[in-house]
Amino acid sequence: MRTHHSPRNGDAAASSPSPRRPLGPDLSPRPQFQSTLSAQKLRRLNYLALLLRLASFCFSLASAIFMATDYRGASSPRWYDFDAFRYVFAANAIVTLYSLFELAVSVWDISRSATLFPEVLQVWFDFGHDQVFAYMLLSAGSAGTELAKTLKGSEACKEETAFCLQADIAVALGFAGFLFIGFSCLLSGFRVACFIIRGSRSHL
Amino acid sequence: MRTHHSPRNGDAAASSPSPRRPLGPDLSPRPQFQSTLSAQKLRRLNYLALLLRLASFCFSLASAIFMATDYRGASSPRWYDFDAFRYVFAANAIVTLYSLFELAVSVWDISRSATLFPEVLQVWFDFGHDQVFAYMLLSAGSAGTELAKTLKGSEACKEETAFCLQADIAVALGFAGFLFIGFSCLLSGFRVACFIIRGSRSHL
Repeated sequence: MRTHHSPRNGDAAASSPSPRRPLGPDLSPRPQFQSTLSAQKLRRLNYLALLLRLASFCFSLASAIFMATDYRGASSPRWYDFDAFRYVFAANAIVTLYSLFELAVSVWDISRSATLFPEVLQVWFDFGHDQVFAYMLLSAGSAGTELAKTLKGSEACKEETAFCLQADIAVALGFAGFLFIGFSCLLSGFRVACFIIRGSRSHL
Repeated sequence: MRTHHSPRNGDAAASSPSPRRPLGPDLSPRPQFQSTLSAQKLRRLNYLALLLRLASFCFSLASAIFMATDYRGASSPRWYDFDAFRYVFAANAIVTLYSLFELAVSVWDISRSATLFPEVLQVWFDFGHDQVFAYMLLSAGSAGTELAKTLKGSEACKEETAFCLQADIAVALGFAGFLFIGFSCLLSGFRVACFIIRGSRSHL
């Protein structure tokens, strides 16, 4: 499905030898070498976006797995007895699924030089979700940290089970996931701004 | 102090009858009525930014005051005995000072149609700080919420002192402050993107 707004803009427009744009004020002719340069830059930016998605997927998945397996038998506390740990697991699981979807979107973007949804929908979808999920992951991480701190020294944190250590690792991995989705958010925010100003997700 | 990059762009460029821009690809002549329209829109955007700063200043200040006065004598717990409450207070105090400074910057921007620092510095300064402080406020709020939840039912939360109630209110006010600095962040992020794409903090 291609955008109805300005079909195949971005990569395709930049690599085309006649870069006439349907929207945006830039009507001056551009030399061929500049188009090639722009296309190269755009490709690098797309690969960077893919890399960030991959990193946030890996860290969120690892965090969710570490939290979900933090269980040491009936006599030990379980992670789902604590609200904040449930929040950490839920937030990371959601971000894992979202990052997987966005990975597919990025691969589609790179391979076909077009967005999966119509461009206007895609840029706002990406940015809105990145922003909300970045905040959600940070909030979950902070709540998880506070709970882990409170539990230190309590009966739940006996050394032989390492229940608290595993919870700490899950929270730390969640923070790493937040870092990468935060950078993705900056990138998708820039694309939204490009779309508003120039009618295309790429300013190049 | 004016910007050395493109002096008096933004408001001044939009309201000027000969809107020749030193940077950016837009070389087509613009009619007078469009300039007036753009200037009006830009003024509204500046007032919106001012309003958001004012709101984040008020809520952060209220949150910091509520937390700092959460003290009921020697027999009762004190807010600074708890790490998360100290974090809430510190984050809100920092955002209060920052919002006060940004209020002055906004008033300067509206009254003189120019940025306080050179434009390139100003847009990055605003966006960077908005982003970091929004994350900080959310993180503090989440940690504070988790601690307040843990304290419920404990000795510290006796009804007659309302220590926990006041802490809850301080945390809630901090969340409200986060909401407004979050919106400010969107606006300043958009200005950064405008600056990167068109060489001016305004796309109008």
